[in-house]
Amino acid sequence: MSLKIALAQLNFSVANIKANSAKIIAAAKQAKQQQADVIVFPELCITGYPPEDLLLRNDFIEQAQQAVDAIAAEVQGIDLVIGYPQKQGQQLFNTAIVLRNGQCIAEYHKIALPNYGVFDEQRYFKAGRQNCLFNIKSNRLALTICEDIWQPGIIEQNRIAGANIILTLNASPFHAGKMQQREDIICQQINAANIPLVYVNQIGGQDELIFDGASFVANAQGEIVFRAAEFAEQLSLVEFIDHQPQISDIAPLYQPVISEYQALVLGIQDYVRKNGFQGALLGLSGGIDSALVLALAVDALGADKVEAVLMPSRYTQDMSNEDARLEAEALGVSYHSIPIEPAVNAFTAMLEPIFAGSKKDTTEENIQARCRGVLLMALSNKQGKLLLTTGNKSEMSVGYATLYGDMAGGFAPLKDVFKLLVYQLAEYRNTISAVIPERVITRPPSAELAPDQKDEDSLPPYSILDPILALYIEQDKSAADIVALGYPISAVQRAISLVDRNEYKRRQSPPGIRITPRAFGRDRRYPISSAYRGAATLIQE
Amino acid sequence: MSLKIALAQLNFSVANIKANSAKIIAAAKQAKQQQADVIVFPELCITGYPPEDLLLRNDFIEQAQQAVDAIAAEVQGIDLVIGYPQKQGQQLFNTAIVLRNGQCIAEYHKIALPNYGVFDEQRYFKAGRQNCLFNIKSNRLALTICEDIWQPGIIEQNRIAGANIILTLNASPFHAGKMQQREDIICQQINAANIPLVYVNQIGGQDELIFDGASFVANAQGEIVFRAAEFAEQLSLVEFIDHQPQISDIAPLYQPVISEYQALVLGIQDYVRKNGFQGALLGLSGGIDSALVLALAVDALGADKVEAVLMPSRYTQDMSNEDARLEAEALGVSYHSIPIEPAVNAFTAMLEPIFAGSKKDTTEENIQARCRGVLLMALSNKQGKLLLTTGNKSEMSVGYATLYGDMAGGFAPLKDVFKLLVYQLAEYRNTISAVIPERVITRPPSAELAPDQKDEDSLPPYSILDPILALYIEQDKSAADIVALGYPISAVQRAISLVDRNEYKRRQSPPGIRITPRAFGRDRRYPISSAYRGAATLIQE
Repeated sequence: MSLKIALAQLNFSVANIKANSAKIIAAAKQAKQQQADVIVFPELCITGYPPEDLLLRNDFIEQAQQAVDAIAAEVQGIDLVIGYPQKQGQQLFNTAIVLRNGQCIAEYHKIALPNYGVFDEQRYFKAGRQNCLFNIKSNRLALTICEDIWQPGIIEQNRIAGANIILTLNASPFHAGKMQQREDIICQQINAANIPLVYVNQIGGQDELIFDGASFVANAQGEIVFRAAEFAEQLSLVEFIDHQPQISDIAPLYQPVISEYQALVLGIQDYVRKNGFQGALLGLSGGIDSALVLALAVDALGADKVEAVLMPSRYTQDMSNEDARLEAEALGVSYHSIPIEPAVNAFTAMLEPIFAGSKKDTTEENIQARCRGVLLMALSNKQGKLLLTTGNKSEMSVGYATLYGDMAGGFAPLKDVFKLLVYQLAEYRNTISAVIPERVITRPPSAELAPDQKDEDSLPPYSILDPILALYIEQDKSAADIVALGYPISAVQRAISLVDRNEYKRRQSPPGIRITPRAFGRDRRYPISSAYRGAATLIQE
Repeated sequence: MSLKIALAQLNFSVANIKANSAKIIAAAKQAKQQQADVIVFPELCITGYPPEDLLLRNDFIEQAQQAVDAIAAEVQGIDLVIGYPQKQGQQLFNTAIVLRNGQCIAEYHKIALPNYGVFDEQRYFKAGRQNCLFNIKSNRLALTICEDIWQPGIIEQNRIAGANIILTLNASPFHAGKMQQREDIICQQINAANIPLVYVNQIGGQDELIFDGASFVANAQGEIVFRAAEFAEQLSLVEFIDHQPQISDIAPLYQPVISEYQALVLGIQDYVRKNGFQGALLGLSGGIDSALVLALAVDALGADKVEAVLMPSRYTQDMSNEDARLEAEALGVSYHSIPIEPAVNAFTAMLEPIFAGSKKDTTEENIQARCRGVLLMALSNKQGKLLLTTGNKSEMSVGYATLYGDMAGGFAPLKDVFKLLVYQLAEYRNTISAVIPERVITRPPSAELAPDQKDEDSLPPYSILDPILALYIEQDKSAADIVALGYPISAVQRAISLVDRNEYKRRQSPPGIRITPRAFGRDRRYPISSAYRGAATLIQE
């Protein structure tokens, strides 16, 4: 006996209940035309995910319920499995319901509420306590939501309860390697329980988060028999015969670097689109970070929506200006050049009476960076374009950036990209078409805020710095652990003490795109006022 | 039979385990000299509260355990009740232990873990499951931690288990009216259970949070028989005879406005001290907000640690400069005056080729504000002084502030203070000594970024705006609810749509001091990319 299940891997917008509903109705009607028996949508598809503290607003919750009622009334002849926040009395549940010809025939409350990393679900939701099965033709389907199937036990419980097929609604955020991890863990569980599973994930960017899609169907042996594309909307149909899924298209998973590149492009695209910007602009220095951000922005938005601004100072080398121009021209992006000297001179003169007698220090470097910030923000304000910052995760970690200077902007695409990966991404982009001048990739990185400045004058080389930072920030390793892994004590000390001292800068940085298991932002919540010094124990040794 | 309980209402620093331990040891020794049988410290006193994601670091947890062991070894002859994060296997508990002559004689794991508002305790801790009693002389004491006693049931359970006295360790953050609310709720419960209670709270500022102390002892009838001062460290002794607390000093609770003023002073003091700044500086405009921040900063740090900067433009009225000078002189604060015209002119000329033909808009206003930001940050960087921003909660709500301009700075004392309260606080401060010129309080507020500009040209009058904002932001009321309360539709629409659209600015604002039940920051987690428009339903009506 045949059962056709449609997987609606779509891009929903947080709080755009009207547009999300329209998308759900259109997809359901299309699936019905294709003879689907049931269509499965992602977790909280009505509201988008994560709605964060909007979930505390009664009017918001009521709007979501009204949208569900309207969808139920609108779509007939196909079952819809929809996720939304459902209030019962004073309790809110992360809910999946099944709508059939205007009626709700099944209702499930998410049992496992993640409250770690970027997740705050226990802030909003009460946990459900029981599984929920419903029938289509001779099939018995079980509802689960995202975290549920990462926990041991829930799939098995559903099998014992008589389920033939597990449906799971997801909003599972991307980080590099996550898709493989996801499939491995889930397929192991379903293989153990000997039951097939339909996994529907949303796609799209939402502030810091990227949802990568990669929805799939696995058979009872835990083998993937269908996979949707990553980072793209896709409405797909998988047929089950006698409860067993038939083999269908299996889109390949992107390799690392490529998947990260795709995630960054989608992140920029959706941040600009969902916030209604006219386009994007950025300061193009001739360095590798802004070179990569420009390429990403053009790939995300198209060259006509992107503008580059060169802002040379006395410390900017000719080759920097030259390379910036070359890239802008290669990408077909319009650009301006505004030398910053007049503003820097004005501030220097204005501060002269107060600073007389004091030594030059980073104050003077910061003034240059902040003059650029003022110019870029003026262009952004005047044109309604989003200002992209170009700093990377290595810089954000150690505070090698100027608050209100190069950190000024609405969105930070590279905030979670370590410098070594910046190079890899640039090289990958050039394999598609050579837009980033080779010299930008090969010359030593410099902030060009002082004569002959190089990053390595202030920081350990990135080949040492980046792995230390990853161990400390993403894995919570102690300084001693990191030294034991073979990294030089002085570099570990320097890196960690800079991370510890620069939380205040990160707290005021724009949101960026999360591509690692721990990004700065909702994912890492550190106090600013903190005496914790991770490297202090090393000094005692 | 007499039992003497010491209440250690102290100011701990997050992650300063060494200093916190020294403070605990010194207080215990002092209490012992005063013949105390037991000394009770606040929740997580070893690490300070809240340690946030430091709790995910094994090295941090190990340091806390080592500190507890060292304290146990150091203090004899008095029982210590101490709070710290305790790891058992892979599980972390918010723990209270009783140390007696080097041994741990009782160990309690917090049962009720708050995960709302500013609290994320379910992110870190596993909930305890059972109460914990221990004996001193003929008394049977029960351990509880903060949220536990806000929940119905836990006090009663302890009474049933045979407790004579409830001890509770707290890190309960301040907001206006919280002390009264706290005593009312808790005293009602202990009256119902007919058991006395010892409530120890910490004091101090920690980033956004203020802990106000106001530790107390209530008798079995729920009457306060002792209260420690608010906003001050205090080591106190309360005697119990036959399990009943004897009447002792009852410090009065501060009235509103005064309590908020004290909270703001403590917040500035501790942010500067705990982050090691040399002092503070701010832009002094002649307006009410900066006038209040200057007075607060002087009261917090002393006049010699505070510096004011006047930065007039062509739109600055003479009386603004005059009033700014008058206040700086009245407070004995040194000040500079730096007219911003040269920098504004430089930027205008630099942007002229690009802006030619476009109309003047807020871009030009923002340039002025950002020139001030650059100057203030240069002074901050050069001198190691904390830059205080002066924006209030009304402005933060509606985005009436310039990102990287007047929003530039490390700490925002008025971030949670609505404009009407700014006036009340200024008037209160002048009752102590008249430092804020009367005209600053009486003249209509203006950003002075354009000719004859007044706040009320862009915003509803604060007497209407502030209550609308409080209902919308602090109470999650819908637009329709607010209109139903009698506020004009147009003002509600305007206010709410500005709140909705300006989340991106708030996300990059410096931390401020929480004095309401919902501040911007950890307390209110809204998406930036959000189609939610609270006023949209009004338009349809």
